[in-house]
Amino acid sequence: MTNNKKVNAAILIIGNEILSGRTQDTNTNSIALWLNSIGVKVNEVRVIPDIEDTIIETVNHLRKVNDYVFTTGGIGPTHDDITAQSISKAFNLKYEIHNEAFKILEDYYKVGEFNEGRQKMVWMPSNANLILNPTSGAPGFNVENVFCLPGVPSILRSMLGGLKNSIIGGKPILSHTISLRTVESEIAKSLSEIQDNNKDLEIGSYPFFQAGKLGVSIVLRSEDQSKINKCSKEILNFIKAKKIEVVDK
Amino acid sequence: MTNNKKVNAAILIIGNEILSGRTQDTNTNSIALWLNSIGVKVNEVRVIPDIEDTIIETVNHLRKVNDYVFTTGGIGPTHDDITAQSISKAFNLKYEIHNEAFKILEDYYKVGEFNEGRQKMVWMPSNANLILNPTSGAPGFNVENVFCLPGVPSILRSMLGGLKNSIIGGKPILSHTISLRTVESEIAKSLSEIQDNNKDLEIGSYPFFQAGKLGVSIVLRSEDQSKINKCSKEILNFIKAKKIEVVDK
Repeated sequence: MTNNKKVNAAILIIGNEILSGRTQDTNTNSIALWLNSIGVKVNEVRVIPDIEDTIIETVNHLRKVNDYVFTTGGIGPTHDDITAQSISKAFNLKYEIHNEAFKILEDYYKVGEFNEGRQKMVWMPSNANLILNPTSGAPGFNVENVFCLPGVPSILRSMLGGLKNSIIGGKPILSHTISLRTVESEIAKSLSEIQDNNKDLEIGSYPFFQAGKLGVSIVLRSEDQSKINKCSKEILNFIKAKKIEVVDK
Repeated sequence: MTNNKKVNAAILIIGNEILSGRTQDTNTNSIALWLNSIGVKVNEVRVIPDIEDTIIETVNHLRKVNDYVFTTGGIGPTHDDITAQSISKAFNLKYEIHNEAFKILEDYYKVGEFNEGRQKMVWMPSNANLILNPTSGAPGFNVENVFCLPGVPSILRSMLGGLKNSIIGGKPILSHTISLRTVESEIAKSLSEIQDNNKDLEIGSYPFFQAGKLGVSIVLRSEDQSKINKCSKEILNFIKAKKIEVVDK
């Protein structure tokens, strides 16, 4: 579903392992790319530790200032998985067995395998909506505008597609990249003038180093393709005048 | 330098390209690993867009509640590089040419190459301390407890070593990992009991999938090696009793 309003979101990564550097987060990138594709702009990302008060406070702030909040991590079976109980407290909801989730996992596991550890994963905020998990059974959940996903990247990615009907996106944000064989300082002034003439379009400049050569990618982002086309033309004009090599456009 | 207090930090990633999903952030991981090695605990990470008010507000919050703040991104020559001017405003300092930085870049570039674009990179908060850049000349800077680093990962990493004398770390945080051929639900209950008996040590449980096999890494973190040893022994005891295969310890 889409509408014409601007729609925004925050991503909240819950996990000591990211803060200690043990694990390289990739969930931010997966969620951001997916949200972008359905017209939801990511305003902010936060990474916080597995501390209940911090989770409650952060979720309660983010859900008030964003259309959507996506959390990752902390919904597994071990003692350090405290997202579901923290979200329950954040919304003043009971933390209890979710009957539908219980049935899903009862069916998913062989007889005798749905043990106490696994049963922890069906404790959720009262009346939470489930987010189905096609990879490993245990569902995520959603309360109001907060969507709680697991931390394991492959499982998280497998669950995003199923969320599409729950999120009402805005106009998709379009982007166009022009890659140049130059350095930023060569184009900084002209680019700045073009940004001044195209205020409602976002122009980013990103140096790269590839196959032994330096370059700069200019990224134009807008909901309006005609604005991207106009700006792209202006950039290619000054690039031509400066005799800078275009690698890709 | 180290002391015996707990020392903490926040990491602030400034950049639309991370929020849009165009770029996978790796700077958080580089900074977190480095801080961990010098006894500084990362409390929080935020990723925010290239918007001046947002940068000012976020920096002013984070610098009050953390011993150190490390920012990345937005100190290059283009119009979307607004970190230095935003930090100046956050501290109510003049945004002006930094003479030492000017000299460094004047020496670094060949005659005629130190153009207007590059000169933007020597505009900084008044009296900022420089952070030397062994890779590409343009220095980062620091004001009070806020350290501003570039966004390009290889350049950022090359600058961290030189910062060591500016940061007073606490006791290094030690960690020990025990990797098991099991699933989390098998060990959840015992692990939870061990965490209850070892409250001042952090026990994390992280499932992995490697070479076609499932496993769980248990990570113990503490400033005290003897606490890690005691807890590790308790874990290996219950693992042995449960006849779970140890992959690595």
